[in-house]
Amino acid sequence: MQFNSETLHFTSETLSNGVVERNFALDEITGVLWSPASRNVGGPLMLLGHSGGMHKKAPGLIASALHSVTTQGFTVAAIDAPGHGDRPRNLQDQRWAEAIHQARAAGDPIAPIVIAYSWSLAERAVPEWRATLDALQALPEIGAEASIGYGGVSLGVVTGVLLTAVESRIAALSFGSVFVDDTLIEAARKVTVPVEYRIPWDDKHFDHTEGIALFDAFASEEKSLHARSGRQYPVPEGERDASAQYLARHLVPIAATLPD
Amino acid sequence: MQFNSETLHFTSETLSNGVVERNFALDEITGVLWSPASRNVGGPLMLLGHSGGMHKKAPGLIASALHSVTTQGFTVAAIDAPGHGDRPRNLQDQRWAEAIHQARAAGDPIAPIVIAYSWSLAERAVPEWRATLDALQALPEIGAEASIGYGGVSLGVVTGVLLTAVESRIAALSFGSVFVDDTLIEAARKVTVPVEYRIPWDDKHFDHTEGIALFDAFASEEKSLHARSGRQYPVPEGERDASAQYLARHLVPIAATLPD
Repeated sequence: MQFNSETLHFTSETLSNGVVERNFALDEITGVLWSPASRNVGGPLMLLGHSGGMHKKAPGLIASALHSVTTQGFTVAAIDAPGHGDRPRNLQDQRWAEAIHQARAAGDPIAPIVIAYSWSLAERAVPEWRATLDALQALPEIGAEASIGYGGVSLGVVTGVLLTAVESRIAALSFGSVFVDDTLIEAARKVTVPVEYRIPWDDKHFDHTEGIALFDAFASEEKSLHARSGRQYPVPEGERDASAQYLARHLVPIAATLPD
Repeated sequence: MQFNSETLHFTSETLSNGVVERNFALDEITGVLWSPASRNVGGPLMLLGHSGGMHKKAPGLIASALHSVTTQGFTVAAIDAPGHGDRPRNLQDQRWAEAIHQARAAGDPIAPIVIAYSWSLAERAVPEWRATLDALQALPEIGAEASIGYGGVSLGVVTGVLLTAVESRIAALSFGSVFVDDTLIEAARKVTVPVEYRIPWDDKHFDHTEGIALFDAFASEEKSLHARSGRQYPVPEGERDASAQYLARHLVPIAATLPD
């Protein structure tokens, strides 16, 4: 697939509580951009990757996005993964999703299926994110000099690690937990930007020893692991704030103001 | 040794940048108390345990104390470990200290000696901390209802874990790194209060896998591990702030004002 940054168009615009939300489409990619309603621009751009089975407006993702816009002045972008949200799901993806549902219903481990499916999705999502970045940076309120970070959980982590391994525009990462396999470990070894990784310590679906192995693999000179007691969900109060603060410390706002 | 809380007396008082610093003595214990210069009282009490070879006014400890007083309104207390700071060192302790110096000079591992020495010191320090607590809580500006937390590194961690395992007045912990052995792991299994534990990931003297084993051992329902790239020293900007914030979230100020 070839992407053309000229084709990004906004399909809706709403304003609520000081945040502008604009849906956009770029070829077959569907996305959303949240930005401060003020005319101040040049804040960092935060990309958010949703988890498998969710979409660009998953409740937790929206909460993180609005928090980051309102407290840090970030502009935040999310896109639907292939076959998620507003995008049609192909037959192969439908089979992956059904296999996960069946394994869960039978009480079987879902990790092997989730890992295989996530890799398939992430490999397709990486060129989509790069095209989206091209298009977003062509917008006057973002620009070529924007400082860019990436946050996500689960599928969003796999996508973010793969993306950051090949995309030098991503300057910092802040992740939640993810199923870890050797391929993800290999990709993490190529990541050198600052990374913060947050894991639950007592989740029956998530082995914290694998999370520690992933943290160890990041080649980043500056990296930070936060492990907390309890399960992955609900996400504790304060964790979204910690993630936004981490990216704020490692991204650089650009002084700029849009013309009236 | 029997301690009598009536015997605590202040030996000096200075005021600087809104913080009152008072040295005190309690039988043979030498300590220091930092508190806000304002007449507002009832803030949490933070106990700080210094590392081996240091003392109650180690530079890092002072920095943490002043930060916690000025940003969180804490009152902070530190005491010299036996044979440290203003206290005479007995012959046995002198031999431990010399053994550590010799091992370090020879490039030998110091962990086994540090662990043995720390245990000896911590076992003596626990009753001293309890007597100090009795005496501090007898002060009108602290009181019997004060919410009490403990922070420390290295020897201060061993002391804090041992103390918290037997002392129900300690309501929350925030630790830096420490050499870990099975005895410390056993003591940690008795700790049930909220604990935050911060470790370096790449320190040649500190094995992070042992740090993870210690974190895993805490019986606390609420616990948090922060691992960061780099060595134990220098302590990064922001870490003291994180520690003070953690204790502030888990300790409860009491509304109170001293009479004029």
